[in-house]
Order: sequence, then structure tokens, then C-alpha cells
Amino acid sequence: MSLLITNIGELFTGDDELGILHDAAFVVADGRVAWVGAAGQAPAADERLDVEDRAVLPGFVDSHAHLVFAGDRAAEFAARMNGEPYTGGGIRTTVAATRAADDDTLRANVARLVGEARRQGTTTIEIKSGYGLNVADEARSLRIAAEFTAETTFLGAHTVPTEYADDPGAYVALVTGAMLAEATPHARWIDVFCERGAFDGDATRAILLAGRDAGLKLRVHANQLTEGPGVQLAVELGAASADHCTHLSAADVAALAGSETVATLLPGAEFSTRSPYPDARTLLDAGATVALATDCNPGSSYTSSMPFCIALAVREMRMTPAEAVKAATVGGAAALRRDDIGVLRPGARADAVVLDAPTHLHLAYRPGVPLISRVLHDGVPL
Amino acid sequence: MSLLITNIGELFTGDDELGILHDAAFVVADGRVAWVGAAGQAPAADERLDVEDRAVLPGFVDSHAHLVFAGDRAAEFAARMNGEPYTGGGIRTTVAATRAADDDTLRANVARLVGEARRQGTTTIEIKSGYGLNVADEARSLRIAAEFTAETTFLGAHTVPTEYADDPGAYVALVTGAMLAEATPHARWIDVFCERGAFDGDATRAILLAGRDAGLKLRVHANQLTEGPGVQLAVELGAASADHCTHLSAADVAALAGSETVATLLPGAEFSTRSPYPDARTLLDAGATVALATDCNPGSSYTSSMPFCIALAVREMRMTPAEAVKAATVGGAAALRRDDIGVLRPGARADAVVLDAPTHLHLAYRPGVPLISRVLHDGVPL
Repeated sequence: MSLLITNIGELFTGDDELGILHDAAFVVADGRVAWVGAAGQAPAADERLDVEDRAVLPGFVDSHAHLVFAGDRAAEFAARMNGEPYTGGGIRTTVAATRAADDDTLRANVARLVGEARRQGTTTIEIKSGYGLNVADEARSLRIAAEFTAETTFLGAHTVPTEYADDPGAYVALVTGAMLAEATPHARWIDVFCERGAFDGDATRAILLAGRDAGLKLRVHANQLTEGPGVQLAVELGAASADHCTHLSAADVAALAGSETVATLLPGAEFSTRSPYPDARTLLDAGATVALATDCNPGSSYTSSMPFCIALAVREMRMTPAEAVKAATVGGAAALRRDDIGVLRPGARADAVVLDAPTHLHLAYRPGVPLISRVLHDGVPL
Repeated sequence: MSLLITNIGELFTGDDELGILHDAAFVVADGRVAWVGAAGQAPAADERLDVEDRAVLPGFVDSHAHLVFAGDRAAEFAARMNGEPYTGGGIRTTVAATRAADDDTLRANVARLVGEARRQGTTTIEIKSGYGLNVADEARSLRIAAEFTAETTFLGAHTVPTEYADDPGAYVALVTGAMLAEATPHARWIDVFCERGAFDGDATRAILLAGRDAGLKLRVHANQLTEGPGVQLAVELGAASADHCTHLSAADVAALAGSETVATLLPGAEFSTRSPYPDARTLLDAGATVALATDCNPGSSYTSSMPFCIALAVREMRMTPAEAVKAATVGGAAALRRDDIGVLRPGARADAVVLDAPTHLHLAYRPGVPLISRVLHDGVPL
């Protein structure tokens, strides 16, 4: 069964050679892109979807999301907007609610947010644990996350839980020991919140190395609130991504630019904590690969909207609309070390978004407006 | 036929005495709110809508929108984001496209944007002319606008069209003469873009007074790009609203605070032109009535999303979420001199929004996420 998507006003392929095509079409077969080209030259297919001159992009790849939790922190958000600084301490509120919730409650929360993201054009989403912070609840969080995505990340090192406040070293031992052992069967990635008040450079290194030894791939929450060792560690250890990158030294920028480690920017967090935005221009101009992701979580960035992050990237971080769309698609794919998503070229997965708009520019030009007209996942129109 | 809306987790009435109610309900009859109170005390009704603990707010009142136009200016937007300043000159691009469009094209554009706004919770929308700028096309724009709303605004004085560039006085004479005469049957309001490069204080006064003599009510585009006479004129002439208010002197703030003229803030314009935001806190703290509106137009603010404007108001203008929601509902109603909308109390129109969220805080806490679960217009669930 093949499907021809045609009358595409603007096809943003995300592929460097194909670029942006007009009056284009593509053919899907077996969940993959089989052909891309001019609408007038399209081969025959079993079915046909006419998108009436709309823009089509690869489905968004949200490479950073914390979806396994219970409760929300709306009151904390409102207090912060009235002047309280964000310190990350509120994570413990969510840990308590998550531990107290049953599996179905957690599963329903993930399903709600994944569905919401999907309706906004996200076709691949990474999901982290990190609100369990004990052996059973971290493993449970990952088991539930794995019901929704292959891109699961063990984030036992999200923060030191209250019960280990007096002995953080013992918590690192737990994370690298029994917790890692129980998490590994359900996780592809390991991640650490490397930050003053969370995990320092030595602890981060120990946890990442233990994860690597267990067969997990690496990603790091780095340099969100202050400069620190996170980015350099991510590059040194060959992590796929250093996430946040809000406070970078010139050496950090150079390290990212000279590496395969993606700089994943999460402007929803700066929006929702009223913080300065990362310097995307310096990273891009230095040659770093940049991804955009939502950081969807109930504390510092409770958005599931990749279009919103694209609009912020253009307005606040001086990315061009094309750079922002690439960061939200092929950039996110690079941050997950995937080359089969985030791009529409022969062989790639047929994950695509049809906009209610004629160009990709409209994602930034029409901020806040739900512009996702249709989503194709593995070639199936949803 | 009466309808009970019940199991409302949080009912944001917008009424100073009723305030915010929990576990609430309201009854609709004949398109009006007939009763508001505790869910457990609700009277019987013919039908029942259970909103399952969601938050309910008054429908949004978008008191400033430019929807009658053809074409878009996505490329101009992208160029501006890459560094060009916004001067307002691009209006003429849209004027040319609008004049060249047939009625059905213009009507379809308004219908598309009104539908989009409705899906985002807007139940009352003001629509301006201002891209015709000749007698026939201004009258035509208002005739089409009037098919969609009672809140139509004659904005012949949007900018001086190219053909009058050498004789702006003649254009003011046209606006106050033949154009006003043809516009008046289709308009409730008259508006002037009082700004350097558009209409100065004398021209603004002349146009507003001519409109008032013709039976129109007054509103003013004031102090968007620079300080100027717009706000003071709006207050002096008893205009319902001074819109933008981005560059205010202390005397402007005092004048607004001591008047019935609403300060209508349009943060979508500052977002999309990368400009400093209005100082909402100073206005609120001085006692001015503040409204939020989208300024939806293809040049400087192509958003139709009141939730997006609320999120910006909280993040960028330090309004509390409750202040922002009030500004987007009862504030907008005040800017249209209406007391039957923007509020859920007995006697008001039953225009309401059900959120996919438990509180009004979520409109700012979850930026960019489409949270409008259901819209009631005149008591009818859409």
C-alpha cells in the first residue's frame, strides 16, 4: 500500500541536498519515504492525499521531555511569576506526588501529554524518568515511558531526594548500583542534572560512566542555571546531547562546535522561569549542531508545544525560522543519534506534519496559533 | 430550554463580587446566564453538561483585530526577525493585495481567522477596516466585517495611502468626508493610528470628531512606536480605549488611570516586532483598566490566540494570571463599552470557555498548548 502526498506548496525536507521544494510531492510505502520530488513528476500510488498548497515538514522530534509524573505545580508557577526565583527545589513536590500515584495515574498522564504533543506535530518524543528517585519508582517510570516511546532516558540523577539530603554520596551509589540495574532493561539513555545543588562534575562523571558500562547512551542536563562542568563532560564522554546550554563559556561553545554532541536548547524553560535565553546564534555561528526541545515538565516548562518553542527560538534567540525548524526536526534527531527521523528523504520514516499555512515561516510568524492541520506517523495520517 | 454546566473545578467569573468559585455550576437560559453558584445547590435544568472538574472562564473578548485583508507578509516577518526594524510601511503591501481581492476572498479570510479565534476561546471579536483606504474598499471591508461581528471599526485612518503621499491633508478630508459617510452604516467605532509617520494629533482629533459627529464611538491606536498625543487625545475625547500604550509618559498613565478609557495592550505586536513590552504593572498599579487583545494582522502581529497573549502578559508584562485573564475577558468588554460579555454572572451572555486544565493559571503555566476544550457561545456548546 503506497500513499502519494501531493500539491505541497512548500516541502521542508530538512535534507541538506533536497532543501525546500515547492509544488512538491512525496510517496510513502511501508511507513518510509519512497520518493520525493516535483508534484508533476510523482509516480503512481495506491492512495492520494492532496494537501492543497499547504506546507509540509518532517514531524517534530522532541528530544527532551519529563512526562512520567503526577500532580502539577501551577501555584508554584504563579508564585514564581510574582517574583520568586526558580531553584529547582520544587522537583521534590513532584517526586512525592509521583511516588504516591498508581501506575494507571502515571500512564494516563503520559498518554495525555503524548497525545497533546502529537496533535501539535511531535512524532518522536524522548521521555525521562526522574520523579521516582528510588529503585522501584525509577524502574516503574521507565517501564511506563517505554509503553509510549523507544527513546527512554534513565534520570535517577535528577536531584538528590530528601531522604539522602545528608548523604548525597550514598544516593550516587544507589543510582549507579541497584537503581541503574533495574532501570537498564527499560532505558536507552542515561542523563544527569549536572548543576550546583544537583550533581557536581565528579558525581556526573561517575553516573554517566556507570550508565555507559551498563550499555546506555549518554545525555546531560548541562549549564542551565550556572556555568559548570556539564558541557565539557558531555563532549569528553561523547554524549549525544548537552541540554539547556544557557550559561556557556567560550570554551564550552568551542567544545560543542568541535564535537558530535548536540546543543539542545529548551527555551520553554527560560520562558517559564523568566530567565535569559541561551545564545543560539553564537552556537550556530560557531558550527555547533543545535536542537530545540520542550523540556515538558510540571516545574520549569510545562509546554508540550514544539511550534511554541520554534516561535521563541526566532523571537528570543535570533534563530531564523528555517534554523528553528531544522533544530526542531533533524536537530532533535541528531540529539537522539537518529538519522531515520526529522527529515523527509527516501528511506526516512514517513513522519510528517501538514501545516494550516503555506510556509514553515508561519510557525514563527503566527505564534500561539494551532497550525498543525494533519500529522502522518510512519506514513499513516492521524 | 435551559442548560446546567456543572462539576466546574474552578469557575473564573470575572465578576468582582462572585470572584473565583470552586465546585461550581451555572445555568444558561435563552443565551444568558440565569444562575451561578455551588454545584451542589444548582437548580434543575433541561440539559446538563458535566465538565469533570475543569476550569471554566468567560469567553475571551478580543477587542482589537484587523481581519479584512488579503495575502500575508511572512517574508517581511522573516526579514524583520533577521534585523530589519518595523516601521509600519508594510501596511501598503496589504492594501494593494486587499484592493485587488474579490469579496469572497476577503470574506473567506475573515471566516478563517474568526474560526481560528473561536477555537482558541474568543467569543467576541472586534474587526477593523483599514486595508482599503479608499471609499469603496473601506466600505466593502466594513460590510464584510459586519457579517461576522457587531463590533466593527472604521479605520480609514490606518495609514496615508501611496496615492495621497504628497497631500496627506486631502486624505484626511476624504476620510472625514465621503469615506466616513460610506463607512458609517456598517461601523460601530472609528479608530485612528495616531503615530509619527501615520496621523498626527491634529489629524487624529479631526478624524475622531468627525466620526463622533457621524454617530460612531471612539478608539485610538496610541503610543505604539513613540510617545505622542494619542493617549491624551483618547482620554480627552472619551474614547473607549487607547490601544498599544507601549510608550507612555507619567502624564499618560495618570490620564488613563483617571478616566474611563481602557488601556488595551497588544503584546503579540511586541513579540512579533521584537519590541519592548508595555508597562502593564505601572498601569494596573495606577488604577487604569487594562485589556489584552491580539492585534491580529498580517504585518506586526499575526496571532489570533488570546491564550498566547495571556501567557505573554504574565511572562513579559508581570501581570498575574488572574489579571491577565480579566484583561482578556472583562477588560476587553470594557474596551468595547460592553457589560454583557467577558463575565459570567446572572444576566450576562452565556459565552464561556472550558479549559483542558483545572485552573485559569494553566493558560500562562502551559504556554503555547491548545487548552481550549470547549466553547459556549450564547449558551450553545460549539
